[in-house]
Amino acid sequence: MIFNKATILGIGLIGSSLARNLKQNNDVQTLAIYDKNAENLEKAHALKLGDIYTDNLQTAVADADIVIFATPVCAFGELAQAIKPYLKKGAIITDVGSVKQYSLHEIEKHLNKADGFVVVGGHPVAGTEKSGPENGFASLFKGRWSILTPDENSTPEAIAKITEMWEHCDMKVDTMEAAHHDKVMAAVSHLPQLIAYSIVGTVADLEGYEHKEIIKYSAGGFRDFTRIAGSDPTMWRDIFLTNKQTVLELIQRFVEDLIALERNIRWDEGDKIFNLFKRTQKIRKDVIEARQDQPEHEKRLLEEMARQTNIDNKK
Amino acid sequence: MIFNKATILGIGLIGSSLARNLKQNNDVQTLAIYDKNAENLEKAHALKLGDIYTDNLQTAVADADIVIFATPVCAFGELAQAIKPYLKKGAIITDVGSVKQYSLHEIEKHLNKADGFVVVGGHPVAGTEKSGPENGFASLFKGRWSILTPDENSTPEAIAKITEMWEHCDMKVDTMEAAHHDKVMAAVSHLPQLIAYSIVGTVADLEGYEHKEIIKYSAGGFRDFTRIAGSDPTMWRDIFLTNKQTVLELIQRFVEDLIALERNIRWDEGDKIFNLFKRTQKIRKDVIEARQDQPEHEKRLLEEMARQTNIDNKK
Repeated sequence: MIFNKATILGIGLIGSSLARNLKQNNDVQTLAIYDKNAENLEKAHALKLGDIYTDNLQTAVADADIVIFATPVCAFGELAQAIKPYLKKGAIITDVGSVKQYSLHEIEKHLNKADGFVVVGGHPVAGTEKSGPENGFASLFKGRWSILTPDENSTPEAIAKITEMWEHCDMKVDTMEAAHHDKVMAAVSHLPQLIAYSIVGTVADLEGYEHKEIIKYSAGGFRDFTRIAGSDPTMWRDIFLTNKQTVLELIQRFVEDLIALERNIRWDEGDKIFNLFKRTQKIRKDVIEARQDQPEHEKRLLEEMARQTNIDNKK
Repeated sequence: MIFNKATILGIGLIGSSLARNLKQNNDVQTLAIYDKNAENLEKAHALKLGDIYTDNLQTAVADADIVIFATPVCAFGELAQAIKPYLKKGAIITDVGSVKQYSLHEIEKHLNKADGFVVVGGHPVAGTEKSGPENGFASLFKGRWSILTPDENSTPEAIAKITEMWEHCDMKVDTMEAAHHDKVMAAVSHLPQLIAYSIVGTVADLEGYEHKEIIKYSAGGFRDFTRIAGSDPTMWRDIFLTNKQTVLELIQRFVEDLIALERNIRWDEGDKIFNLFKRTQKIRKDVIEARQDQPEHEKRLLEEMARQTNIDNKK
């Protein structure tokens, strides 16, 4: 038992997957689940994800040893301000936000060391393109990295407890500065996601094409982008707007490289094209060697998806 | 039995997957496999994919009822010219090339109706990012579309036989004009693939980033693009160079849309961003409803990948 009472704010894909772990791993005595959306709360209740289900922040956070922010990041500031009067002194605040400088700024302007609170930023790098409490599952985090971004509002004890919590979810835990986190994630996550959204929009809008035909032959490659671009719109909008400068810089870099490749094609520069593709093939090898793409892991996720699809179809 | 003797030119991922089907489905009496690469031929032999293994074109195509071009498309012209003297009259020529106008142009300038040959362009829309005969497998085609692009060099009898061959591979068969094929594939396959190559190059080259860190956190999204960008460099270079005009047009359309999205982010136009992401989510639903992304199907592919990874690891 790590915590007597834990509170999850926002019971979406990540919040609900963590809830499942906290109960299964026996890490918490009482788990309170807050969501402002009544439907999500009902689903969480029906799935028996916690012990308390409420849209009242006081009920949610009173006596909590830890409060985990798991809503879209743009709600963090308001929530932090709202729960402040009800939080017990010494309570630990953490989050699962994909952008760490903004998240911590929003939380820490209301909750910080000076007021007797402990804050440890966190980001479990895991997910699927689905959202909502019914789509979470305990093994979502398995084998993935959870990144903690402690700062002057953190304590070694709190870091140790949160590390333990994520390790119980079968995650590997890493620690870095919030700014470094945002820079790395812009490259490995935010830019790829943005490109996926953009290309799905482009292909779907092409004049002179039949939408039905685009969908029919989507297995040619387009499909893989639609999977990524099926992700939660609110969450991703918030990420791009709150990690803006780095994302904008990377878009420029990407466009520069794409235009160079376009030029290679226009001028039949087959060697240059081939060399790029050889290089990307090598990067693929590096990813596999680093065990960051494991068929057995993907298979497990797909089994989960298949199960969910069957549930959807039965509805 | 559809054919007495069939010849596959080029025993890569697609050629070897088709070979496995032709034998398993009892569609051919004698299967001749040609490849100019000795290593590929040896692998095909060790895997018992056919009956004749040769780098001699005369041996390969003599008495063949059907010759299937399965090399990169830029080799088609030379091969067509080289086999002409050895082909029997009335032989059927088909191919598996991803670009149909160019492929057919290259084949038909040497082999056509006037000389007593029958040509039916084909493109089984299936594949993985792996290449080589050892990575092919019979169920690769299952549930996918095979597109035939018959023209004035085709006959109804030949179309029927090739349709039967692909249907025995569990494919659905569709027929369209070569030009239409190239336009549709540019959108659903060539552009997405090009973008994947480009973004993997961009992210891997970012100055001020550690390569190791990019790989380590690649599961954040980058990984999915490396999978696509791990595909055969020669095949894809040829596709972009031979479907050039349409691909160049679509790159321009894509850049235009990406710049618009960049501007939305810069000016905090959250609503516009959200609306795009909502729209792409809907497109994802269309893909799933059209059963073009089925977890059970993906799972089967992953099982195959896991098996191959195990084989690789044991080497």
